[in-house]
Amino acid sequence: MQISYREAAEFLRNNDNFYILTHASPDGDTMGSGFGLCAILRKMGKKANVYCSDEIPARYAFLCEDYREQSFEPETIVAVDVADAKLLGQKLGSLYADKVALCIDHHVSNTGYAERTLVEPNAAAACQVIYQLMAREGLTEADKTIAECLYTGIATDTGCFLFDSTSPETHIAAAELMKCGIEAGKINRRMFEQKSKARIAVEKFILDNMEYYFNDKFAVVAVTLEEMEKTGLPAEEFEGLAGLTTVLETVEVGALIRQKDEHRFKVSMRSTGDVNVSEICAGFGGGGHVKAAGCSFETSVSDAKDKLLAAVGEIL
Amino acid sequence: MQISYREAAEFLRNNDNFYILTHASPDGDTMGSGFGLCAILRKMGKKANVYCSDEIPARYAFLCEDYREQSFEPETIVAVDVADAKLLGQKLGSLYADKVALCIDHHVSNTGYAERTLVEPNAAAACQVIYQLMAREGLTEADKTIAECLYTGIATDTGCFLFDSTSPETHIAAAELMKCGIEAGKINRRMFEQKSKARIAVEKFILDNMEYYFNDKFAVVAVTLEEMEKTGLPAEEFEGLAGLTTVLETVEVGALIRQKDEHRFKVSMRSTGDVNVSEICAGFGGGGHVKAAGCSFETSVSDAKDKLLAAVGEIL
Repeated sequence: MQISYREAAEFLRNNDNFYILTHASPDGDTMGSGFGLCAILRKMGKKANVYCSDEIPARYAFLCEDYREQSFEPETIVAVDVADAKLLGQKLGSLYADKVALCIDHHVSNTGYAERTLVEPNAAAACQVIYQLMAREGLTEADKTIAECLYTGIATDTGCFLFDSTSPETHIAAAELMKCGIEAGKINRRMFEQKSKARIAVEKFILDNMEYYFNDKFAVVAVTLEEMEKTGLPAEEFEGLAGLTTVLETVEVGALIRQKDEHRFKVSMRSTGDVNVSEICAGFGGGGHVKAAGCSFETSVSDAKDKLLAAVGEIL
Repeated sequence: MQISYREAAEFLRNNDNFYILTHASPDGDTMGSGFGLCAILRKMGKKANVYCSDEIPARYAFLCEDYREQSFEPETIVAVDVADAKLLGQKLGSLYADKVALCIDHHVSNTGYAERTLVEPNAAAACQVIYQLMAREGLTEADKTIAECLYTGIATDTGCFLFDSTSPETHIAAAELMKCGIEAGKINRRMFEQKSKARIAVEKFILDNMEYYFNDKFAVVAVTLEEMEKTGLPAEEFEGLAGLTTVLETVEVGALIRQKDEHRFKVSMRSTGDVNVSEICAGFGGGGHVKAAGCSFETSVSDAKDKLLAAVGEIL
């Protein structure tokens, strides 16, 4: 059931003992949403914890520096930035997939798996939805912790206010959150600019191995387990590279294929123009946003590439 | 004489036949300020033209798509984003260096060369100062042309809202300008993401040739005319690369040395932490912002590098 901001606020006010679930392979938006909503609920006098099926990546550790797990029996399960119960991952999915009382999200592809869903597809980030919920419904006043979490989610999910998804409301949320005394420039530098020598090497590897098709309108690059091993670089350095596929100015669609195990390949697609990559990925059982989506293949790397080439070629 | 927003607005209202001067080696902020202020003045019923000592780079041509030079005798000379009369360049400097009636700027290093100066060092861009002047003093309502110009200047001078210079007011200006129906995502993609094959090659060249000193806290790279010729890539692809010097996470100060002619080297410096590169550059007769500054050397490339190493080494 799709609910309004007012109803979501009432639900949070009328309940307690929250377990907040984030999606597996966590990004800045689900982490910021999780720890941001947790800080809001605790400031409202509630008990709340945040969980993720995967480890919290080191780059987001600063979001939970002041967070300590509380001891209580869960009564209310809330999912943030989780478009599909499958995305909760193995650990949380097996426990809570059919028990989510409220989902706060911004994915147009949200499957409505939760009892109540507050989804705003026009919001650039789930953190923007949570900011608006807090501010419009007066849940609490943002403090520095809340602001750091929500700003980080908004900044990371918009490529630092770069993507089409950024609206005037996104900038207004950022402005208000910055007034809480966060060091936004420092966060941005950490999220977008600073790279390890390993990361710089991985990005060079990606750019060097990119293949271009259809008059340089489609860029595709595959990273196999064998190649990852050859570079000697840690797996986490190979995360979040899909944006590199659309760097060349002529590219309209980019695809990054990453081998997860022997026969499983995860594909991240990006669109810079009119092509709806969410539709292409849906054709392979995946989904996401119009300009950023993903899917998986159980096949070989060359077959995965051929399937993508055929699907993209039909459109371009 | 430093003047207020109110006084600057009165000055613009009470005068006519404006020549708006931008700085040489034009960037997005001086171009956006020039064509943005010109559009504002024309909407106020004034005559106004925009000039630059250098050619307008192709990447900013979209800012003056609708601009046509008007025919009139100049009465009022205004400079935008020009911190020092020297930065007007040869052509404009020789004609107008001592005739600037109003300078609108955001550089703390503004020399006060103009009769009247509206400088706000806390503003992230001269375009933000012009937006605030227009909005607070009600000069006119922003339209799509004005908004495109001012948004572009703000976005480019903040690295897309990434730098420390970005304040809540910067985001609010962006939000208001976006409401005029501009395609901000498209502008951002053009300014920050899309690269030609030549640009990708130049960036790779820069990263491959970077040298690190003082426990990887200082990064310096020099591009000589000989090397530029060897790559066969056009000179304009070598503009705006200083940000690459601070990509490695440990780097606190970065310097890009670019040979301009046989004995002249232009240095662009960046700081990611507490080091004030404006002070370092001032020691060599240059200036700029705390975290982004520049200077020139009449020497050899190795001597330029040694001088920078000595100056930076004293601080790090």
